[in-house]
Amino acid sequence: MTDTLPGTGLLGLSSLRHQVGEALTGFLDSKDQAAPGAELRYLTGTLRGLLAGGKRLRALLCVTGWQAAGATGDVTAAIHAAASLELFQVFALVHDDVMDDSDVRRGQPSAHRALALAYTADGGPHARAQAHGLGAAVLLGDLALVWSDELLHTAALAPGRLAQVQPLVAAMRSEIMYGQLLDLRTTGRLSDDVEGALRVVRYKTAKYTVERPLHIGAALAGATQPVLDACSAFGIPLGEAFQLRDDLLGVFGDPAETGKSVLDDLREGKSTVLMALAVQRASPAELDTLRALVGRSDLSEAQAAQVRSILHSTGARQTVEEMITTRHDAALAALDRAPFPAAAVVRLRQIARAATARQT
Amino acid sequence: MTDTLPGTGLLGLSSLRHQVGEALTGFLDSKDQAAPGAELRYLTGTLRGLLAGGKRLRALLCVTGWQAAGATGDVTAAIHAAASLELFQVFALVHDDVMDDSDVRRGQPSAHRALALAYTADGGPHARAQAHGLGAAVLLGDLALVWSDELLHTAALAPGRLAQVQPLVAAMRSEIMYGQLLDLRTTGRLSDDVEGALRVVRYKTAKYTVERPLHIGAALAGATQPVLDACSAFGIPLGEAFQLRDDLLGVFGDPAETGKSVLDDLREGKSTVLMALAVQRASPAELDTLRALVGRSDLSEAQAAQVRSILHSTGARQTVEEMITTRHDAALAALDRAPFPAAAVVRLRQIARAATARQT
Repeated sequence: MTDTLPGTGLLGLSSLRHQVGEALTGFLDSKDQAAPGAELRYLTGTLRGLLAGGKRLRALLCVTGWQAAGATGDVTAAIHAAASLELFQVFALVHDDVMDDSDVRRGQPSAHRALALAYTADGGPHARAQAHGLGAAVLLGDLALVWSDELLHTAALAPGRLAQVQPLVAAMRSEIMYGQLLDLRTTGRLSDDVEGALRVVRYKTAKYTVERPLHIGAALAGATQPVLDACSAFGIPLGEAFQLRDDLLGVFGDPAETGKSVLDDLREGKSTVLMALAVQRASPAELDTLRALVGRSDLSEAQAAQVRSILHSTGARQTVEEMITTRHDAALAALDRAPFPAAAVVRLRQIARAATARQT
Repeated sequence: MTDTLPGTGLLGLSSLRHQVGEALTGFLDSKDQAAPGAELRYLTGTLRGLLAGGKRLRALLCVTGWQAAGATGDVTAAIHAAASLELFQVFALVHDDVMDDSDVRRGQPSAHRALALAYTADGGPHARAQAHGLGAAVLLGDLALVWSDELLHTAALAPGRLAQVQPLVAAMRSEIMYGQLLDLRTTGRLSDDVEGALRVVRYKTAKYTVERPLHIGAALAGATQPVLDACSAFGIPLGEAFQLRDDLLGVFGDPAETGKSVLDDLREGKSTVLMALAVQRASPAELDTLRALVGRSDLSEAQAAQVRSILHSTGARQTVEEMITTRHDAALAALDRAPFPAAAVVRLRQIARAATARQT
């Protein structure tokens, strides 16, 4: 069953997702077969589970970037490069969860929790389970990172293309790590620095999640600079809107829909734009409440409700909604000016809608 | 001041170390200059400190592999590739210390400890210092890993050489991660499985630390298969001897010399060949003592002395010394048969001696 994008002749999103999934499965199968021992399945099994849950946003953007640069025909190499971005994303998620000590990811136990459970189920001593889970998750992320590289290198790209793609991949990696660094340095410190929070959004999400996957796909098709620039003009505002939506969902979302705890961001004291706006505008009494509650690792549901009420009463929530709309509109306007084939524009509109919707 | 290896005309080890250090410094300088903000210096500063302490064994082997394959002339590209292995090694050390929760590395606080201290010194809340240090160290390791890749890709290799080197780099990375996985799964479980412990040694050290750096250097010079095979015949036994020596130093060494705590391996319950031999040969009373003490995170110096005494009385220590000698001799014998230029053989003998000496 192959679906197509109406009116374009392009493969539909679900067909693309399926092909990316097949590429990932094929790669992991080859790793399991080549492994010196069965122990590796302990990590590849966990990887398969994590890869199954994603929406494959980066992969879809990568393939669409390839189409935006005018490529048609055999999509195989683009699918492999797209799959390598999904492996990279699993690396980023697994290490992010370790850094944030998050329990849940995509509705399942996060990797370090799952690996701790697997260790005791396998007869490992309970006293070491947590340390083992953490160590195994760090290792799992490392493996996903180096394998994402390998998947890209073995993607059978046209001659010379790898050299064109490589600097963009290097930039993407450095950018997300810079964003993570900013995030780490601000987490747990209540701040009114909206600009600072937006910088984190730009590096950690806008560039990493949207702009660079488009760039990498476009470079696979030998994109010209105007095409790359148009990818940025669309990708940066869309990526910011996407992260701002994610921040709202992280506090006001429905865990059954998002697969994420609605307490984690508040317990960690994530320095989001939402929180910085609330701090800017809070009354002295409200500020005292935020100071007392945000960042408490034992924050209760009732205390979280108090924080949510301040995010609402200060208008911070409403302002973030407006920021999302502004950015979503800017992304669509950039698309109107972009030198992309019409079919790629249709697809990017579809992705923009899904990425900034009020529910995931 | 340029030293040369006597009788060969090759640069001496200290000159090579110096050139590798210059390449690393130049690379990190360029990263600091290109960074969007000063925050990055928080991580690059820590990286510089970690890179300063090493013996650069992998880098020296890489350059010597290049010479073993018959290369002469401009060593610049080989030095850059060698430097990329040192960055990779810092990645491996930093994540290894996170996984093992080690406090000390190369005589200094380990990365996660140092970063926790830097965080509180910078005004970060004490309650978050440990979590921050751990997260920042995971990130630092990630950055070292992707930068090692970048340093290799920008090493100005002869055309076609990168494609020849890439599969060997991929193999090296997968192998050390496989070794780490075996290590993680066995740590904390007292075992008499000498063969299993030797498998960890083979993947985590022999291939990663010796064989693959030689291979990568040799491939940079377009090595033939007989040269690569000779690198393995020398590298695997030497790497095993090196790790077995390291295991002895980790329990019986002088921390002032090794820069490592002499309690960590015992507290973690590392599954070394040394310990597996002792478990095989222990009397029931000795086995009870080992079970009670090995893996205790609060192991005292007096308790460690009890364990050392059993490692001695069972003959485990002596057997490991003999295993080191056997492997060291096998490595030297392989060198006699190797199709390497005489100067490379002189250098490899020198490295073999240093790597398996009773003191570091």
